[in-house]
Amino acid sequence: MSYLARVDVMLKPGISDPQGQTIERALPVLGYAGVREVRVGKRIELQIEAASHDEARSKVEEMCERLLANPVIESYEVSIG
Amino acid sequence: MSYLARVDVMLKPGISDPQGQTIERALPVLGYAGVREVRVGKRIELQIEAASHDEARSKVEEMCERLLANPVIESYEVSIG
Repeated sequence: MSYLARVDVMLKPGISDPQGQTIERALPVLGYAGVREVRVGKRIELQIEAASHDEARSKVEEMCERLLANPVIESYEVSIG
Repeated sequence: MSYLARVDVMLKPGISDPQGQTIERALPVLGYAGVREVRVGKRIELQIEAASHDEARSKVEEMCERLLANPVIESYEVSIG
């Protein structure tokens, strides 16, 4: 069966996020006050063939560890649709 | 009140996604077969001050149109927590 997997990869707390900082500085210039703690990460969507929901999840988690995320500085969340 | 906003920005269907293609080519080499349609987008998280849930959503949607996404080639989804 084919499953739609969504993976959100965010920098861990405490890891500097230059993209987020740039957005945070740009927003007041455009007239948006009151925005804090901007963090920018990746969202990855893919279709995966697997025998079950659980197998799809465990395969995608393994892919995160090996390719999709850098577990030293990033955390990830997998959801299987 | 402060709201946590999550924004997912993905390339529209039909727009070429070189990051996704690179991942799709790398996965079989690492032993993961059966993965298709890999798409890579951005996830942005931020804290926003607003008077209501609706105001927070409409502010963040406006930010997407003006700064966070490129509406010509990207679509976005906003969720307010």
